Amino acid sequence: FAEGPLLDGLYWGKWYNNKTFTFQHNSSYIYYENLLLGVAQIRQLKVHLNSCSIHPYFRAALEGCYSEYHYGAEDRTDFGPGDAPEWKYSSASSLWHWGSVALYRGGGYKFYLARSKQESLRKLEFLRENSWLTRGTRVVFIDFSTYNANVNLFCIIRLVVEFPATGGALTSSHIYSVKLLRYITYYDYFLASCEISFGLLTCMFLTQEAVKIITLKKKYFRIAWNWLDLLLLLVSILAIAFNIYRTVKVSLLVEELLSDPQTYPDFYFLAFCQVLYNTTVAVTLFLAWIKILKYINFNQTMALLSCTLSRCAKGIFGFSIIFFIVFFAYAQLGYLVFGSQVEEFSTFQNCIFTQFRMVLGDFKFETIEAANRVLGPFYFITFVFFVFFILLSMFLAIINNAYSAVKAEFDVMPSQEFQIKDFFR
Amino acid sequence: FAEGPLLDGLYWGKWYNNKTFTFQHNSSYIYYENLLLGVAQIRQLKVHLNSCSIHPYFRAALEGCYSEYHYGAEDRTDFGPGDAPEWKYSSASSLWHWGSVALYRGGGYKFYLARSKQESLRKLEFLRENSWLTRGTRVVFIDFSTYNANVNLFCIIRLVVEFPATGGALTSSHIYSVKLLRYITYYDYFLASCEISFGLLTCMFLTQEAVKIITLKKKYFRIAWNWLDLLLLLVSILAIAFNIYRTVKVSLLVEELLSDPQTYPDFYFLAFCQVLYNTTVAVTLFLAWIKILKYINFNQTMALLSCTLSRCAKGIFGFSIIFFIVFFAYAQLGYLVFGSQVEEFSTFQNCIFTQFRMVLGDFKFETIEAANRVLGPFYFITFVFFVFFILLSMFLAIINNAYSAVKAEFDVMPSQEFQIKDFFR
Amino acid sequence: FAEGPLLDGLYWGKWYNNKTFTFQHNSSYIYYENLLLGVAQIRQLKVHLNSCSIHPYFRAALEGCYSEYHYGAEDRTDFGPGDAPEWKYSSASSLWHWGSVALYRGGGYKFYLARSKQESLRKLEFLRENSWLTRGTRVVFIDFSTYNANVNLFCIIRLVVEFPATGGALTSSHIYSVKLLRYITYYDYFLASCEISFGLLTCMFLTQEAVKIITLKKKYFRIAWNWLDLLLLLVSILAIAFNIYRTVKVSLLVEELLSDPQTYPDFYFLAFCQVLYNTTVAVTLFLAWIKILKYINFNQTMALLSCTLSRCAKGIFGFSIIFFIVFFAYAQLGYLVFGSQVEEFSTFQNCIFTQFRMVLGDFKFETIEAANRVLGPFYFITFVFFVFFILLSMFLAIINNAYSAVKAEFDVMPSQEFQIKDFFR
Amino acid sequence: FAEGPLLDGLYWGKWYNNKTFTFQHNSSYIYYENLLLGVAQIRQLKVHLNSCSIHPYFRAALEGCYSEYHYGAEDRTDFGPGDAPEWKYSSASSLWHWGSVALYRGGGYKFYLARSKQESLRKLEFLRENSWLTRGTRVVFIDFSTYNANVNLFCIIRLVVEFPATGGALTSSHIYSVKLLRYITYYDYFLASCEISFGLLTCMFLTQEAVKIITLKKKYFRIAWNWLDLLLLLVSILAIAFNIYRTVKVSLLVEELLSDPQTYPDFYFLAFCQVLYNTTVAVTLFLAWIKILKYINFNQTMALLSCTLSRCAKGIFGFSIIFFIVFFAYAQLGYLVFGSQVEEFSTFQNCIFTQFRMVLGDFKFETIEAANRVLGPFYFITFVFFVFFILLSMFLAIINNAYSAVKAEFDVMPSQEFQIKDFFR
Repeated sequence: FAEGPLLDGLYWGKWYNNKTFTFQHNSSYIYYENLLLGVAQIRQLKVHLNSCSIHPYFRAALEGCYSEYHYGAEDRTDFGPGDAPEWKYSSASSLWHWGSVALYRGGGYKFYLARSKQESLRKLEFLRENSWLTRGTRVVFIDFSTYNANVNLFCIIRLVVEFPATGGALTSSHIYSVKLLRYITYYDYFLASCEISFGLLTCMFLTQEAVKIITLKKKYFRIAWNWLDLLLLLVSILAIAFNIYRTVKVSLLVEELLSDPQTYPDFYFLAFCQVLYNTTVAVTLFLAWIKILKYINFNQTMALLSCTLSRCAKGIFGFSIIFFIVFFAYAQLGYLVFGSQVEEFSTFQNCIFTQFRMVLGDFKFETIEAANRVLGPFYFITFVFFVFFILLSMFLAIINNAYSAVKAEFDVMPSQEFQIKDFFR
Repeated sequence: FAEGPLLDGLYWGKWYNNKTFTFQHNSSYIYYENLLLGVAQIRQLKVHLNSCSIHPYFRAALEGCYSEYHYGAEDRTDFGPGDAPEWKYSSASSLWHWGSVALYRGGGYKFYLARSKQESLRKLEFLRENSWLTRGTRVVFIDFSTYNANVNLFCIIRLVVEFPATGGALTSSHIYSVKLLRYITYYDYFLASCEISFGLLTCMFLTQEAVKIITLKKKYFRIAWNWLDLLLLLVSILAIAFNIYRTVKVSLLVEELLSDPQTYPDFYFLAFCQVLYNTTVAVTLFLAWIKILKYINFNQTMALLSCTLSRCAKGIFGFSIIFFIVFFAYAQLGYLVFGSQVEEFSTFQNCIFTQFRMVLGDFKFETIEAANRVLGPFYFITFVFFVFFILLSMFLAIINNAYSAVKAEFDVMPSQEFQIKDFFR
Repeated sequence: FAEGPLLDGLYWGKWYNNKTFTFQHNSSYIYYENLLLGVAQIRQLKVHLNSCSIHPYFRAALEGCYSEYHYGAEDRTDFGPGDAPEWKYSSASSLWHWGSVALYRGGGYKFYLARSKQESLRKLEFLRENSWLTRGTRVVFIDFSTYNANVNLFCIIRLVVEFPATGGALTSSHIYSVKLLRYITYYDYFLASCEISFGLLTCMFLTQEAVKIITLKKKYFRIAWNWLDLLLLLVSILAIAFNIYRTVKVSLLVEELLSDPQTYPDFYFLAFCQVLYNTTVAVTLFLAWIKILKYINFNQTMALLSCTLSRCAKGIFGFSIIFFIVFFAYAQLGYLVFGSQVEEFSTFQNCIFTQFRMVLGDFKFETIEAANRVLGPFYFITFVFFVFFILLSMFLAIINNAYSAVKAEFDVMPSQEFQIKDFFR
Repeated sequence: FAEGPLLDGLYWGKWYNNKTFTFQHNSSYIYYENLLLGVAQIRQLKVHLNSCSIHPYFRAALEGCYSEYHYGAEDRTDFGPGDAPEWKYSSASSLWHWGSVALYRGGGYKFYLARSKQESLRKLEFLRENSWLTRGTRVVFIDFSTYNANVNLFCIIRLVVEFPATGGALTSSHIYSVKLLRYITYYDYFLASCEISFGLLTCMFLTQEAVKIITLKKKYFRIAWNWLDLLLLLVSILAIAFNIYRTVKVSLLVEELLSDPQTYPDFYFLAFCQVLYNTTVAVTLFLAWIKILKYINFNQTMALLSCTLSRCAKGIFGFSIIFFIVFFAYAQLGYLVFGSQVEEFSTFQNCIFTQFRMVLGDFKFETIEAANRVLGPFYFITFVFFVFFILLSMFLAIINNAYSAVKAEFDVMPSQEFQIKDFFR
């Protein structure tokens, strides 16, 4: 079997790293501050042999080929010597994973490590001898969780090794630190009471908005601020629901775990939810902050400013279209010319981000000069000149003009009337 | 005792580092340029066992827990085999220390190293064998001072090793180079004469301001510049007082030290005062510089400019509120979304600083992209677009408008009259 | 033979690096994902002895000298012991190479490595013993190609070691990843159909423009947009032609290669063409994007903006001249003062790029301060002050003024008429 | 003698480095591309014992002290066992050197290394045994020169090791690559003819300006451009004079060197002159570029722009004063608060440069936050807010206003007359 040595090398490399990490983790942390919850789970995904087509010229020279990972090319047949779970495909039971190369399914060939170091080693050696990792292997996941009692935090860790079709290996790690168990200290009880009052306020607000909708009907949906209110409400309800769900789910999982320490507790889904929930809350809070701007123009200076901003919105929007046409033209140029050489231009989105960073000055000129000695500097200088010098100045001009106009109007307008009208809005 | 090996490892690591640093310091520098003053002092702070509460689920699995350091959780009971000072809690005799994890009290379990290397080593080995550092240890301080005769500077060094509740260790060092002994060279005598004349001027200025206050009464306190004058006076008097205090204190300490080289001279408080004093002087000097602006508008161009600045202050202030609402909304979003993953967003203050740095272009986009692949770029691009393009332009528009208005007024106004009126103000 | 040891050192260094790279490449990649196509080719270029003139003072002390590489100084005589191709100059058969020191001819002394590692090693040792690399050697090229069947990409690799006249060695690598074989998967067939329809559209467009030219004659060439159309047409035709040429050429090369694996397939020229073609396509697409701006002013806001841009073009252009005079004055100053010390100022072009980067904030101040302690900071501060503060503000002023004027005109002009007129343009 | 071991360590460290550098240089480069000219010279400067005053408290504890290097503290007495030049002070024969700690005299205790490696080693060992480097040694210079025949460049190298009074050692290197021998190739002859014609033109221009001065008398000196012309003339004459001086001096030195290879050729002064000359030429060329601006307003757009620049010069200048008051206030604050901790704020000049870099975004916020956890962020945020947001906007406002005014005037003014008047100026 010709691929032995390579796989062997990869295998050792991989397991060696993993061992020094996982088990050092096991033996040093667990006794001191962090408790390893259950055992680690290892999972791989593979692709079919001949999942890609070889050009006729090379068909004689090459035995077969394995394409990049995608849903259709996935290999789900059993293989290997034994009947153990690691040689059998088990269908999706966890979340799909968005890696740096592809989006991976939740299933795969999975097995659990043992609790003792020697047993785990023996298992891994057995797998290595039987070539568990093949040329078709595209990704390997290693999942485990720890719990720190001092600060009452769970740490859910996922190590990922991706094998792209071009060869080599990409490693990445996902570490979520989440607080899943709550209501322990007095401070937590204080939080709980806050949450209850939040629930009551949400109910109140909900009925109030419902009344508004019924009375105003279609008019209600025409005002942007109302949409914002509805969104805030929706997220509040979701937050309450998730809070209850999490509390229940965690206690179930922990109880199961405490009864059988040999199992792998799937906190990953819960951690993912928690992170998603945190993100949603963050976005909502952001919107709530922005909502303050609604109430800001009680005073003439403020009204002047917010009026300017809303006045020039049309001009800004119109100009943004021109701006982004030029911006995308440059992004597309950068993508096609530097894409295959410079990492920052490897995708179209990256080009856009890179160009934003160029405007702010965070940019490595050497790389694009190395990628294309003629077009690189040309691209850089014209981009800086047009976007930084000319187009940014247009924004200034539009806002400046709008401000002058609004200021002139306000100076003429009698201020008392305005202020009162505004306050009672 | 199960924790032996870990503590052993930590201990060795720590003492080894310390030894190679402190003693190399001892043996190489002291003979050549810098004199080690007295001996080094080592001090630790601990927390109670069960200073935090464990969730009922894990109570069986975990023996006990040690919370983060805070005042209430501090352990002050004696421990260990001996009766020596290192096993007894000695109450606060030095300043509280603001570490990177918590604010530490000035007391603790402390002892002095001996002057000879072998004796110190024996002491440290004895402590290690008796587990002086426990799981509850949260911080260890190592203090010592050196004096360089060539440039007449004291160097007060504090090495800090913090053990956060999550495990691991954080090291930091605080080095203050201060000139505590003065009046040696001719240049110092020149400085002394300056200081005396400064004292006399301060007295004069003090009486003058007192007269002003008596005559003007409440009106005096309405002008901002007068407050500045008072502040300057206050700092001047404090500076003189501190100068006298320091001279007395240092000579006491040094005399004590020279009579008994086995003692630890607590220059840390003095160094801290000196640094505080320097900082205050720096801020005062800064204000004095700004005071120049008061006398600047003797000339028409200057008057035009300073008038513009004061005119647009209201608009700028009003707009700053809008700006900071948006800015804080973004900071709060960044804190909640990236806080647990990216170091630059780990606290709310850091978020604010990071965003200021983003405006200036000093920013690592990759980290926030890695933290959240969807919201990271969204956050970055909208932030740059709104804050950098739109809001900064508003500042320009406000200032531009104010300048135009003031300029127009000045062109109309007869300039002679203005200039004279201004000069005699 | 006095130069033995040095060459030996260099040689080993070079070959050792090369071996660990090339052959590790050979043995690890080829079996797994990438197929090494044929064998690697090594090529060197030399200069004459006494290709430069020595000053009379040193003629006694120095035996001879070898100038920098340029066309005239090239040494094309046979040398060495054998009759093998590596000792004979073979005239240009490949592209000239633009290295970091000079532009190198396509010919040189070249030979192929064998397919087995031992044979190659033996060959290299033989060359080393007979000093294939001499003091006159100015550049060595190592070329080889690989093919990855999984993703159907060719990878053409050129490693370059340049030996400038000042001594030392500069290494660089050129890696082109290109898709030379096409029409394998269904997606490729879809692309092929797109290409055919593109060809038809190009023909249509061609006849249309031809008709326009005949009817409008000279007038046609006065409008800039028409020139853009013609350029687009030209590039389209070139693209189609190159597409056909590549397909034919690749199949010839691959067939030849498959019949004789000992040959070196010269994919470099093809890869270079492909990259050139991609670049041209990228530029054309960029121009096509810009063409969108032609059709943008259907709406009043847009018309206002594009009118402003075209209005202030004259002012911007005029000011750009002043700007670039000052800019080039600074660039020339930087070149002459820092050129010999700081890498970023080593050529005049680099100075220009560096200054653009300074405006964006991407700049290392320390280097120019180290290069000249007086003029460095002076250069930096005046540059920032004049270019960043003063000149950039001028751009803003020009655009701001133009926008105000255009806006005022538009507010007066009846909008309906304008819109209709514009739409049917 | 107690200081032996340290000096030994330093000595070896120093000589080891030097040997591996110099002699590797000697043995590897010299045979290949670069010729070592003569031998290397080593020179040291010392200070007196008790050149600084010790505070009475420490007089008992410390034997003596050595101050920082300054002219008065220099030790010029003979010392050591032998009568050789290295133990005797030889008065200044070379340029003063501006090191990173102090300005060093040109004299010192100097000796030459031998041409053979063994002899040099023996000499150095002898010096080390007799403690040539003492506690008072403040700086050691190592000078040597090489000549590269291939590109006809001299390389004059000075390695400096400074020993500041606080202990430790600072190393720096000064490498000048200059073309001292000229007129070898045809291109050089072409340059020579250019130089001759430049000399003739200078003469012509000189007489012309002389005539102008005689006719216009005092009026002549009132116009800034005329001063520029005079400066250009002066530098031209100096350039010609230096050119002649260098040619003569170099041939003298080289001839002396060729007759006795054991001598040290002092090219350092010549290289320094050459660099100074290059710098002067660079500045002059910069001024000549700026002179183009004088002739630029032949066209209305240009006239408009240059008129705007000269119009707003007064406002800009006035505002610059306010700007720099605030700027210096911040710089002084930064210097006093962060000066002893952060390298970028260690001197007042550095503060100014650092603040300019902050405006451009090139700044490490972490360092100032680490230096002072309260005042650091405060300083940073207020600086960015005031200087970046507010003050920069003022520049824009001033320029914008001036442009609008000038533009309005030009639109009214009949353009023909203006253009003609301008052209014949």
